[in-house]
Amino acid sequence: MIGDFSIHATDGQARLGELHTAHGIVRTPAFMPVGTVGTVKSLCPQDLRDAGSQIILGNTYHLYLRPGDELVARRGGLHRFMRWDGPILTDSGGFQVFSLSGLRKLTPDGVEFRSHIDGSKHLFTPEKVLDIQRNLGSDVMMVLDECVPYGADHAYTLKSLDLTHAWAARSRENHAPGRNGQLLFGIVQGGFFKDLRERSAEAVCSMDFEGHAIGGLSVGESTAEMYDLLAHTAPLLPAHKPRYLMGVGKPLDILEGIEHGVDMFDCVLPTRNARNGTLYTSQGQVNIKRAQYREDDEPLDPACSCYTCRNFSRAYLRHLYVAKELLSYRLNTIHNVRFFLDLAAGAREAVAHGRFEVYKARFREIFQPAEAT
Amino acid sequence: MIGDFSIHATDGQARLGELHTAHGIVRTPAFMPVGTVGTVKSLCPQDLRDAGSQIILGNTYHLYLRPGDELVARRGGLHRFMRWDGPILTDSGGFQVFSLSGLRKLTPDGVEFRSHIDGSKHLFTPEKVLDIQRNLGSDVMMVLDECVPYGADHAYTLKSLDLTHAWAARSRENHAPGRNGQLLFGIVQGGFFKDLRERSAEAVCSMDFEGHAIGGLSVGESTAEMYDLLAHTAPLLPAHKPRYLMGVGKPLDILEGIEHGVDMFDCVLPTRNARNGTLYTSQGQVNIKRAQYREDDEPLDPACSCYTCRNFSRAYLRHLYVAKELLSYRLNTIHNVRFFLDLAAGAREAVAHGRFEVYKARFREIFQPAEAT
Repeated sequence: MIGDFSIHATDGQARLGELHTAHGIVRTPAFMPVGTVGTVKSLCPQDLRDAGSQIILGNTYHLYLRPGDELVARRGGLHRFMRWDGPILTDSGGFQVFSLSGLRKLTPDGVEFRSHIDGSKHLFTPEKVLDIQRNLGSDVMMVLDECVPYGADHAYTLKSLDLTHAWAARSRENHAPGRNGQLLFGIVQGGFFKDLRERSAEAVCSMDFEGHAIGGLSVGESTAEMYDLLAHTAPLLPAHKPRYLMGVGKPLDILEGIEHGVDMFDCVLPTRNARNGTLYTSQGQVNIKRAQYREDDEPLDPACSCYTCRNFSRAYLRHLYVAKELLSYRLNTIHNVRFFLDLAAGAREAVAHGRFEVYKARFREIFQPAEAT
Repeated sequence: MIGDFSIHATDGQARLGELHTAHGIVRTPAFMPVGTVGTVKSLCPQDLRDAGSQIILGNTYHLYLRPGDELVARRGGLHRFMRWDGPILTDSGGFQVFSLSGLRKLTPDGVEFRSHIDGSKHLFTPEKVLDIQRNLGSDVMMVLDECVPYGADHAYTLKSLDLTHAWAARSRENHAPGRNGQLLFGIVQGGFFKDLRERSAEAVCSMDFEGHAIGGLSVGESTAEMYDLLAHTAPLLPAHKPRYLMGVGKPLDILEGIEHGVDMFDCVLPTRNARNGTLYTSQGQVNIKRAQYREDDEPLDPACSCYTCRNFSRAYLRHLYVAKELLSYRLNTIHNVRFFLDLAAGAREAVAHGRFEVYKARFREIFQPAEAT
């Protein structure tokens, strides 16, 4: 049944699960490539399938502004518009309002902001962002919340939590469980205060959401801080529902999340870095523009079976990147997305066989030095 | 045998032929998508195959400057570098030297120019550009020539012809017929003077090239002038060898060329216009950014079976274009390239069945009004 979440194996706190959505089953742990405005940048749906994508993410804020959620609804929804027939999760737009748009005004009713495209004024309320997500027709919707900036103090964060929790309650009320076959996930906030994370988990997890997210991480804190908060917060979320760590992260961050029982992840790193020429391989990060690859006839990652690695040399990829050729962005993105999807697939395999610790250790060996710099 | 050109049907002066190259047979009339620096912009080899490409063009000037023809040679040649295993034609670089680079100095030996990338100084001689094309390993090479600017007078054009013919003779001497399995085509110039076109055709066609090109058209003249020169020049080229109209053109120009017995064409229009949102359809040109397509759920061209038209709506293509999404360039390019390839394929079919005139008339009906504006 839509919304069912079954756990088929565990390894420590890590779990192997299946989430049933209106557009199919998502095997977890799952990585969700980010398709901001109806396309994972430079990729078409066939590329996503070929890379092994199960579920992708769409950005409510961006789609609301352009082309507009009502226009998308008239096209039959986001799946049909972009021709992706697998599951889609949409965020609430809150994070983008706080990070991208100008002139925000926060009231108990919602948040007023100006479009980063044309400066026009808009209001997001908990109900409004659900209307938008219903227009988009996503399989998993997220509630509106306030993502407090890194460094916010205890008093501010506590006050913000009251708002976030009130909005969560209004969201659940607005969208009853099972409506339209669209799941609704709550978001636990609380900044970097463990007592507030506990308070938030208790409040949010009492509202009968189909899943729970950890928000407000990867906002400028150190890796140690993030891991500390993650380790404290993840176990607070009910084990029988999916857990989603929003906007995280680097390969090691994702593995850290999985180790603490997180099931779903999204991040722009693989796609954004692909466009910057930073590529993830089984030997660590590769900056493809470096001169050392000028005459390198090896595939980017001999261990990878993506279209890019099966067909092209590092020398060719470097040439395309240096010449700013459009094909560079696509070939790099195909590879990076595949790397993150393979990372999650490998984690599922490892959990199934009770060897997640060994699996994670291998990546720590590869990525620790690069990520420490 | 490599270099063989057989004609299987004619319809008026139009012909249906087959050119044998080291990387396969090219059925003519053929359109060659332009892959400037080792990629047809935004497309991968699979996209080109899917669109029906038989042969593509590479630009000697660009590849020489970046990544360098010697680097490409060390990679095993251009086919292997870019993973295109079909035929490739390379131009001589002359046209780009005259149109793109700065500080040209023309001497009997060759042409000195500065790179448009870094201002560095280079010399192209007839022999040098053949060395480059041998490094690239193209199936059809072109001789170095001077493409005189539109408006050049009779005296200048005549003087230029002497240089172009001397270079052609040196080229043939440098590259004997059959060498490396790489064909060499001569280029007929002569500006917009019929007597000089005759003089050039006589000189160039006496040099035993495997094919002949008409250069120096589509350089700023009116369509009427181009068609007049084309009608005069094409019949001057020996009928038993392939004829190539360089850098031309719009759909109607290509059909005009075919009508006068031309076999091969290349042009940046389908790829460049794709990136500008100008798309070719069986109903004429479509400017996909226009507001009228905002909510248009039809495919771009219902008569087209390319990946783009099989999967996406005009509304989605417009959205991608307006949002400047990378996927826009690829989907538009896939369609436009397919349109030009289908145009040539349809012409082959029409010639085979003796109804080329009817075929051409249909396109004149569609494109005449749009192209007159």
